[in-house]
Amino acid sequence: MPIIETHVLKGYSDEVKTRLGRALTDAVRMVLPASPDAVTVMFHEMDSADYMRGYEHKQPATPLPDPCDTIRAYLGAMEARELDKAQAMLGDGFVMNFPGAQGMTTLQELIEWSKPRYKFVKKTYEGFEALQSGDATVVYSVGTLYGEWPDGTPFEGIRYIDRFELTGGKITKQDVWNDIAEVRTQG
Amino acid sequence: MPIIETHVLKGYSDEVKTRLGRALTDAVRMVLPASPDAVTVMFHEMDSADYMRGYEHKQPATPLPDPCDTIRAYLGAMEARELDKAQAMLGDGFVMNFPGAQGMTTLQELIEWSKPRYKFVKKTYEGFEALQSGDATVVYSVGTLYGEWPDGTPFEGIRYIDRFELTGGKITKQDVWNDIAEVRTQG
Amino acid sequence: MPIIETHVLKGYSDEVKTRLGRALTDAVRMVLPASPDAVTVMFHEMDSADYMRGYEHKQPATPLPDPCDTIRAYLGAMEARELDKAQAMLGDGFVMNFPGAQGMTTLQELIEWSKPRYKFVKKTYEGFEALQSGDATVVYSVGTLYGEWPDGTPFEGIRYIDRFELTGGKITKQDVWNDIAEVRTQG
Amino acid sequence: MPIIETHVLKGYSDEVKTRLGRALTDAVRMVLPASPDAVTVMFHEMDSADYMRGYEHKQPATPLPDPCDTIRAYLGAMEARELDKAQAMLGDGFVMNFPGAQGMTTLQELIEWSKPRYKFVKKTYEGFEALQSGDATVVYSVGTLYGEWPDGTPFEGIRYIDRFELTGGKITKQDVWNDIAEVRTQG
Amino acid sequence: MPIIETHVLKGYSDEVKTRLGRALTDAVRMVLPASPDAVTVMFHEMDSADYMRGYEHKQPATPLPDPCDTIRAYLGAMEARELDKAQAMLGDGFVMNFPGAQGMTTLQELIEWSKPRYKFVKKTYEGFEALQSGDATVVYSVGTLYGEWPDGTPFEGIRYIDRFELTGGKITKQDVWNDIAEVRTQG
Amino acid sequence: MPIIETHVLKGYSDEVKTRLGRALTDAVRMVLPASPDAVTVMFHEMDSADYMRGYEHKQPATPLPDPCDTIRAYLGAMEARELDKAQAMLGDGFVMNFPGAQGMTTLQELIEWSKPRYKFVKKTYEGFEALQSGDATVVYSVGTLYGEWPDGTPFEGIRYIDRFELTGGKITKQDVWNDIAEVRTQG
Repeated sequence: MPIIETHVLKGYSDEVKTRLGRALTDAVRMVLPASPDAVTVMFHEMDSADYMRGYEHKQPATPLPDPCDTIRAYLGAMEARELDKAQAMLGDGFVMNFPGAQGMTTLQELIEWSKPRYKFVKKTYEGFEALQSGDATVVYSVGTLYGEWPDGTPFEGIRYIDRFELTGGKITKQDVWNDIAEVRTQG
Repeated sequence: MPIIETHVLKGYSDEVKTRLGRALTDAVRMVLPASPDAVTVMFHEMDSADYMRGYEHKQPATPLPDPCDTIRAYLGAMEARELDKAQAMLGDGFVMNFPGAQGMTTLQELIEWSKPRYKFVKKTYEGFEALQSGDATVVYSVGTLYGEWPDGTPFEGIRYIDRFELTGGKITKQDVWNDIAEVRTQG
Repeated sequence: MPIIETHVLKGYSDEVKTRLGRALTDAVRMVLPASPDAVTVMFHEMDSADYMRGYEHKQPATPLPDPCDTIRAYLGAMEARELDKAQAMLGDGFVMNFPGAQGMTTLQELIEWSKPRYKFVKKTYEGFEALQSGDATVVYSVGTLYGEWPDGTPFEGIRYIDRFELTGGKITKQDVWNDIAEVRTQG
Repeated sequence: MPIIETHVLKGYSDEVKTRLGRALTDAVRMVLPASPDAVTVMFHEMDSADYMRGYEHKQPATPLPDPCDTIRAYLGAMEARELDKAQAMLGDGFVMNFPGAQGMTTLQELIEWSKPRYKFVKKTYEGFEALQSGDATVVYSVGTLYGEWPDGTPFEGIRYIDRFELTGGKITKQDVWNDIAEVRTQG
Repeated sequence: MPIIETHVLKGYSDEVKTRLGRALTDAVRMVLPASPDAVTVMFHEMDSADYMRGYEHKQPATPLPDPCDTIRAYLGAMEARELDKAQAMLGDGFVMNFPGAQGMTTLQELIEWSKPRYKFVKKTYEGFEALQSGDATVVYSVGTLYGEWPDGTPFEGIRYIDRFELTGGKITKQDVWNDIAEVRTQG
Repeated sequence: MPIIETHVLKGYSDEVKTRLGRALTDAVRMVLPASPDAVTVMFHEMDSADYMRGYEHKQPATPLPDPCDTIRAYLGAMEARELDKAQAMLGDGFVMNFPGAQGMTTLQELIEWSKPRYKFVKKTYEGFEALQSGDATVVYSVGTLYGEWPDGTPFEGIRYIDRFELTGGKITKQDVWNDIAEVRTQG
């Protein structure tokens, strides 16, 4: 039965409020065994003129983009090798940890390391999910890999999971696990 | 600057309210670029006598245990081979997907499958994080594996990630990825 | 001193909000001995985008017409013998209980039964009052009857009370009591 | 979907709050087509120390008794001829209007007028319903009469409706309609 | 940490809401040791249609002008000898108490009394502060006086304080203290 | 009609809440022309467990003493020459400005300066009023002085006003104006 009233400054789009309402609903349902219909969220929007803290009125901050959208766009740009587009999404201190190659810091590094491993590899997405962890937003991408080995043999259905960290909307970390070695070992 | 007012029935412990308050704070910070100090949460607790829906008063539901605690307890029970204790945490339809072995449904199956792969394996936890996904709570456990190969050679620092699904506090799914094959392949 | 805050979806006219505010004020004053000035009602209206239940935004429902207006219109249409107009206000299972004639279900039945009893009969309204009873709205019409007996003798001031039930804005029941027999018996 | 928050002073019993919550729910459902489950009522109780109007703290007023209970008690006392008990429930200006006898002001008057009409008469209650009308609370009692005519012949099932007005918990008016004359006339 | 929610009728300018928000913040900080950033004020504005007391909707009242602005304007008009302008700001029962001349009621009286005391006198304002005292608003003007004695000798830096009372926006009382006599006595 | 809801942490005495409620009422009445009965204040108290900001629960701060009480106590201690008691109420940077003696910093300084001016002087208080000015609380004491001149001649009714500043409950500034010189000059 929880009822959540959220006081925010005006200026957020309907899409942002839907995203926030669902995130608040999820937060409740993680702690209390409430069915979806038992969780109500209400937004009370205020103009700057109606909100004051420390004697001053405040302006609303620009909302963060949907982190799952950001990661989808990044993975898509990487698959299409649109490196400038992908690079623009990265933040300071960006580091990648792949099975067998940890601590890579540039996209070029990743591409070089990948070259001998497969002709190409693409993802079939099963789902994206996000959570907030301190100051970072974490996004998980789960699915399978398909592509071609260096000798042209195709492969598909190789399980993968990527864990991304974003701060201020920029990607700062990518941890990757997959069954490539497991599958290669089998045959 | 968001201020979240949460109306709930009385009966939840301080620990539960802290957990819920932090989950709500995280939900806000995933959508709006708010510093922690900019997010306020207030709980307004009501006795049953002060809450009515559809002409009837309601009782508070028993809160769910902290899902990360449940997973820690499960992994600990499995490591200690306390199978009854681990089994008690499983829900209907429990299925495990490991690299190289998908669709396992019983703990005995898992133990048999593991026997030839290593003498023993234990986890060094780096972190646990949780999110709500529809009716399921998802918990991620990230860290490294250490143990001994069948021939007694020790290993350590092998990257792993486990993704658990819980429904109604019971574990219904476990997806595992790790670098065991990658490491074995290297040497 | 009660203060009532009502959270509703936007879309209701001023007239509807006045009606609701007065109904809420009456509800309070029936239970607590509060003078009118001691009861405050505030409406907080929300756009659909600002209200969420079960992860979904909702639309406001069309308000019900003022039930007293509906009954006034029905009685007026019946007096003017505008039977189509009156019929349109009736709901499934409509039944009428008059002194000496219970269980009538059609307006034609009522008109036939009335023919030998008086040349015509009209109402002088003293008041209409409404209350909610479960899923039905109940409207009482109190006043006096005037008209002419079959022999043309006029009559007036005969006490009557009608009790109507409405569901979803449609009239489903009419119970009538009056002093016609009492007055006829006297002379 | 309306959500009603009611701020009241502490001191009201659970029974009073249930009565008030249901009255507020009914008020909403009379104006908006909301199913019972769509109407939520929350009470926020305050100690006197937490409420101030015009610079002064206030004390809660003694709630009014359930008006339907008062009328049930009055009708029961009248049936049992416990006239002192019934008299104690009456307020200034109490007046009764019965079919064929309007403007009676004392219970003795009523009893004398009733003597030649029936040996005894008792009520079978079908229902009681209440509403607030300005400063008065109105209670309707609907049901049937049974008893014995002066010659001992029993009667039953005679339709009746009583309309009571209460102010400050005391009964100030009683209007009665019934089919006694109708039934007597038939035979 | 106090959070103040203020429900008001719509119709007040941003300037009025800023003034009110700051006055509420000051009120809190006078009783609780809260830093400015710990005090939040939110305004919830309502159209007349969304506010009801005693069954009736209300209209917003015209806000009072900033009392410090009124006093600044009055003192400025007096210095410039714009007596009509100053007179228009006075309310019934206006009385002035100066050192050595109490109970003056007209501006002409004040001017006559002042003539022999100095050639001219003007104020250097250090600050204006206001508070509410029952039905009156009190404004203090603190600063120093400068001007010329009757013999043309200039003076400056003479401490003064004026205490004004306003009711309904009009000035009803002025109490003046200053060091003129102290300074004159010294030399 | 303003309604002020104040969310505070539990732990404040009734006296503190009365003081805060009246200060909030005064704040409203300084900006809007509301009669006392038109201003309602409600306190919603929360246990620490029900309040969270920046992921952490907070403790209530110790309220400040009524500043007018502090000043009354200070003036009383000074009149009774209880210098230790008076000194304990002073804060860092305490400075006094009297007519003819500005910038005094110690109570001994004041006493020495006062010795030749009068045998003794006491205050007849007309009123105390307080307001918040940034981080300081300002208290005004208005009234008249009575006592004896050095030659024993009594005096009374000499107008005075003292302006005090308090920070964190301690007195940091005292500005004094009075008609002593004016009266002495007259005779």
